[in-house]
Amino acid sequence: MSQYRVLIDAYDEKGLVHKISSVFYNNDLNILSNNEFVDKENNKFFMRSVVDGDIDLKSLKKSLEEVLPKKSGIEVIAPKKKNIIIMATKEMHALGDILVRHEAGELEANILAVVSNYSDLESFVTKFNIPYIAISHVGLDRSEHEAKILECLAGFKDIDYVVLAKYMRILTPRFVEAYENKIINIHHSFLPAFIGANPYKQAYDRGVKIIGATSHFVNNNLDEGPIISQEVIHVDHAYGWRDMQRSGKDVEKVVLSRALKLALEDRIFVYANKTVIF
Amino acid sequence: MSQYRVLIDAYDEKGLVHKISSVFYNNDLNILSNNEFVDKENNKFFMRSVVDGDIDLKSLKKSLEEVLPKKSGIEVIAPKKKNIIIMATKEMHALGDILVRHEAGELEANILAVVSNYSDLESFVTKFNIPYIAISHVGLDRSEHEAKILECLAGFKDIDYVVLAKYMRILTPRFVEAYENKIINIHHSFLPAFIGANPYKQAYDRGVKIIGATSHFVNNNLDEGPIISQEVIHVDHAYGWRDMQRSGKDVEKVVLSRALKLALEDRIFVYANKTVIF
Amino acid sequence: MSQYRVLIDAYDEKGLVHKISSVFYNNDLNILSNNEFVDKENNKFFMRSVVDGDIDLKSLKKSLEEVLPKKSGIEVIAPKKKNIIIMATKEMHALGDILVRHEAGELEANILAVVSNYSDLESFVTKFNIPYIAISHVGLDRSEHEAKILECLAGFKDIDYVVLAKYMRILTPRFVEAYENKIINIHHSFLPAFIGANPYKQAYDRGVKIIGATSHFVNNNLDEGPIISQEVIHVDHAYGWRDMQRSGKDVEKVVLSRALKLALEDRIFVYANKTVIF
Amino acid sequence: MSQYRVLIDAYDEKGLVHKISSVFYNNDLNILSNNEFVDKENNKFFMRSVVDGDIDLKSLKKSLEEVLPKKSGIEVIAPKKKNIIIMATKEMHALGDILVRHEAGELEANILAVVSNYSDLESFVTKFNIPYIAISHVGLDRSEHEAKILECLAGFKDIDYVVLAKYMRILTPRFVEAYENKIINIHHSFLPAFIGANPYKQAYDRGVKIIGATSHFVNNNLDEGPIISQEVIHVDHAYGWRDMQRSGKDVEKVVLSRALKLALEDRIFVYANKTVIF
Repeated sequence: MSQYRVLIDAYDEKGLVHKISSVFYNNDLNILSNNEFVDKENNKFFMRSVVDGDIDLKSLKKSLEEVLPKKSGIEVIAPKKKNIIIMATKEMHALGDILVRHEAGELEANILAVVSNYSDLESFVTKFNIPYIAISHVGLDRSEHEAKILECLAGFKDIDYVVLAKYMRILTPRFVEAYENKIINIHHSFLPAFIGANPYKQAYDRGVKIIGATSHFVNNNLDEGPIISQEVIHVDHAYGWRDMQRSGKDVEKVVLSRALKLALEDRIFVYANKTVIF
Repeated sequence: MSQYRVLIDAYDEKGLVHKISSVFYNNDLNILSNNEFVDKENNKFFMRSVVDGDIDLKSLKKSLEEVLPKKSGIEVIAPKKKNIIIMATKEMHALGDILVRHEAGELEANILAVVSNYSDLESFVTKFNIPYIAISHVGLDRSEHEAKILECLAGFKDIDYVVLAKYMRILTPRFVEAYENKIINIHHSFLPAFIGANPYKQAYDRGVKIIGATSHFVNNNLDEGPIISQEVIHVDHAYGWRDMQRSGKDVEKVVLSRALKLALEDRIFVYANKTVIF
Repeated sequence: MSQYRVLIDAYDEKGLVHKISSVFYNNDLNILSNNEFVDKENNKFFMRSVVDGDIDLKSLKKSLEEVLPKKSGIEVIAPKKKNIIIMATKEMHALGDILVRHEAGELEANILAVVSNYSDLESFVTKFNIPYIAISHVGLDRSEHEAKILECLAGFKDIDYVVLAKYMRILTPRFVEAYENKIINIHHSFLPAFIGANPYKQAYDRGVKIIGATSHFVNNNLDEGPIISQEVIHVDHAYGWRDMQRSGKDVEKVVLSRALKLALEDRIFVYANKTVIF
Repeated sequence: MSQYRVLIDAYDEKGLVHKISSVFYNNDLNILSNNEFVDKENNKFFMRSVVDGDIDLKSLKKSLEEVLPKKSGIEVIAPKKKNIIIMATKEMHALGDILVRHEAGELEANILAVVSNYSDLESFVTKFNIPYIAISHVGLDRSEHEAKILECLAGFKDIDYVVLAKYMRILTPRFVEAYENKIINIHHSFLPAFIGANPYKQAYDRGVKIIGATSHFVNNNLDEGPIISQEVIHVDHAYGWRDMQRSGKDVEKVVLSRALKLALEDRIFVYANKTVIF
C-alpha cells in the first residue's frame, strides 16, 4: 500500500470530478488530499490528488484516460527523489541553502551535480560530496559554451529539474527547449519590475520601499517565464543598492528553495505562461 | 440557473468524494469550485463546493443525506445577504471599516443594527442610516446588562452573525450559548499571547518586535475561541504602548473585516476549537 | 512650552550635527527625537528633530541659517492640522478610510473638500459634513477640465496636500507644477511594475503571485514620482483579475493612509526623485 | 583613517547630543551615521554613531566620559570580527545557515567552535573546517553537564557571543550569568506565545493561523529574555504540527541569523529586559 500523486489537466466539462473519483473508488483508492481549480477564462480544469492504495500505475492511468476528454494531461506519480542539476556562478547563498536542505534530508531530490562557469564554488560544493563541474565560458561564444554544458548534461539521464541558483548567464532558446518547463530560475527582483541586469541598482535608483525576488520557469523571453513564487522585504532610504543586494539574498534563497520544493512535490501545473500551484 | 454553496462535514471514509460528486452529477450540477480537507487526527472530512444548476435545495440535501454517513453536517445554501448585528463600545476604526464596506456594496450582509454600551458612536453610525441602539451598563451588573442586550437582539429575527467590533465587555456563557459559533470577535493581540486586558501594554512591557490582531469565534473561555484570522505588523523600540495601540488599529480592522467576509461567504467550518477555512 | 519639528536638508560637511545641536542647546531646547541620514552618493544631509521648549520660530530658523551652509533647507514647524483636498472618482474605499480616520480624530488634517469628476460619492462624503465639489469632465478636454478644478482649488487658501484617493484621471504638467511635491497619489500596483491603466489586469495576465500598491508624489511622468510607501499581499492562481482588484483595495487604502500620515507629520524629504522618510 | 562605532547609553538630560557631537567635532571626526532614542518612561538616552577619522580609542572614550553624566555606558569600538561559539543539538537548518554565511564571508565573526550534546552534526560542521566539540549529557545531571561545557568554553578567550542554534537544553543561572547578554537563542514560537517545549504542537492545538520564531538574549527565566527579532509566516488548517515545524525552520534560521548580524554590528542595547536596536 503506497501513496501516489495524480495530476490531471483537461478541458473543463460537467462531471469531471465525478468521473475521476469514480475511477479512484473503483480502484479501491483512498483520497488523502484533493485540490481542484477551474480556469473559466481558458475553460481548463486542474486537479491534484494524493491517493492511497494498492495500484498499478499504468492501469490507473489507463482507467483515467478512458473517462477523461481526449488530450487531457494525466500523470500518476509514485513519489520518489527527483534528479536535479544545479547551475551557479559565484554566489553561495542560494546554492548553499539547497545544499544544506539536501544534507539535512529535507529535499526529495538527488543532486546529480553542480555546474558552473567558474571554479570558485568548487571547494564549497565538494564538501557536500556533490560533483562540481566547472565549464568556463572564457574564449567561447554563448552558443559554444552552452553546447559544452548541454553535452555535459546529456551525460546524466533522467534530469527532472535544472535549478539556476544565481547562474548569471542568459540561456539560449536551444537550451531552454531542451529542458522545457524544467528550468527553475531565481530572479533578484519582484518581476516584472526590474527585468535584466542589476535589478538592485535599478530598484535603488527608482527609490522603491520594497524589494523582492521571483522564482520562475525559464522560457525564451528574458525573465518572462511562468512565475512560481515571489517574496518581498521592506527597505528604506538608508539602503544603498549594495545593502539591497545583501538583504535581497535572504529573499532569493527562500524563494528559490520554496519553488524547488513545490516542483519536487509535483504541485505545479504550467499553462498560458502561468502556474497553478496546489 | 443559480449558484449554491454546499458545505459538508463528515467522518471520513473511502468514497466520500465519489458519492458527493455522483449526487452533483445526477442532479446535473456543474462544480464551479471545490475544496476538501481531511483531518486525519480526528478522522474528519470537510468539503465546500460551489455548484451551478437548477436545483431544489431540500431535495439536493436529501440526496446527499442518503449517500453520506449518518450525523454528517450538510448545508445547501443559496447565496444571499446575511443578517448581522454589530456590537461596539467607543472606538470607530473597526466599526467604520465595516460600515464603509457595507456602504460600498462590498459586503454580503444586512446590518440590522449597531448595539453599544455607550452612545458615543451614535451620530457616526446613523450617518449610514443604520439603527444605533445604546444600552448602558451603568448601574447594572453584567448579567442584568446582558439580559437587556439579549432582549434587544431577540427582537431581530434570523441573526446570522454578531460581530464584536471592539466591544470591550466580556460576554457571559448565557450570551455565548445563545449565539454559538455566531459571535465573531477581534482581539487586539496575536493570540494566544496577551490574553485579557490591554494587550498593547502587555506587548510593550514584554518588548516584542511584532504586534498583531486575532479574529475568533467567541466561546466561554476568554480569548480562547476558534481562531479565524490573524495578522501582524512589525514594531520597534521607538513604539510606546500607545503607538502600538494606534498602529494596531489598522491591523484590527483588516483582520475583523477579513473574518467577517469569510463568514458571509460560508467558508468557515468550526470543530475541535479550530477552524477549517476554504 | 511646546513641541516643534525642525527639518533640515543640506550639503553634507563635517560638524553639521554639532552646529545644529549647539543651536538647540543655546536656545534651551530639549531634543525629544532626532533622525539623521547622510546620502553619500549625493553628499546630502537630512535631519528631522522634534524639540521641546519656549521658542520663537523665526529666530530659531535664523540661528540655524547662520550656522548651516548656504542654500540649506530649513523648516521650523509648529505642529498644527494641515489643510488637505481629496480628489476621487467613484470608488469609496480609499476615500472612506481617510474620512473615518478624520472622523475618529486620528488625522492631523482639516479636509477642506472632496473634489470629484463625478457626483457618485456626494451623498457618502456629505454624511461627514465635508464639502463635495463635483466638476464633470464631460464635454471638456483635459485642459479645460483641469482649469476648472484649478480655479476651484484656488478658492481655498493654504492647501498643504492634494490627496488623490483613486482619482482616475491623469493630471497635466500645469496642475502638477501648481502643487509640486504636494500631490499624493495611490497607484494600484507595486511600482514600477504595471504602470498605467488597469494594473490588476496586467498583473493577472502576467501570473504574479504578489500584488501591491504604491503611494507616491505626482510628477510629470505617469506613475514615476517619488515613492512614499508600498505594500503587498499574496495572491494565487485562483484570483481572477477582479479578485485581485477587490483584494487590492485593502492594500491601496492602507498604503495611501500611511503616506498621508507621514506627510502630515512632516516626516518626508523629497530629492532626486526619491524620499527620505523618518 | 578608520571607522569606529560609538555606543552611548545615559540618563537623559538636556544637551547630550550637543555634548557628544562637540566631542566628535573637536576630535575632527566625521559622523557617518547617527541613531538616537530617548525612552521617556525610563528617562534613558541611547545613541549609536559611526564616525570616521584618525582617533585614539581610549582618549575618545575619556573625552566622552568627561562630558557625559556619571555611570553612562560608553563604548568606542573598532570594527573587527567578533568571536562566537555556536551551540546546537541535532538540527542542521539554523546552524547551517550561519555556517554558509560564514563561508561566504558575510559574517563579521570567527566561529571558534560548535559545541553540541550530540555528535550527530560533527561531519556536517567539520566540512567547514570548524572545530566540533561533542559533550554528551548522558549520565550527567544538568549541572555536571554544564560544568563540562563551561570548562570547555573557558578554554577560549574573548568569546563575544554564544549562539544557541537550536540547542535544546535549558541553561542554568550559572551558565547564563557567565555570559550575561551574550547568549543569543532562537525560540521556535512567536514569544510570549507558546513558551517551553514543542511550541509547534502547542500552536497546532490552539489552531493559530500564523506561526513564528523569536531570537532573544537568554536570561534566567525560560524564554523570557530581551527579544531581538521576530518573524512569522501564515499557516492554515492543512498544516499538521509537523508541517508547522518544517515550515517554521525557515523562519527560525532567518530570525537567528538576523539577530546575530545585529549583534555583530553592535546595533543592540539591552535594558529593562528589552532591546533598543539601531
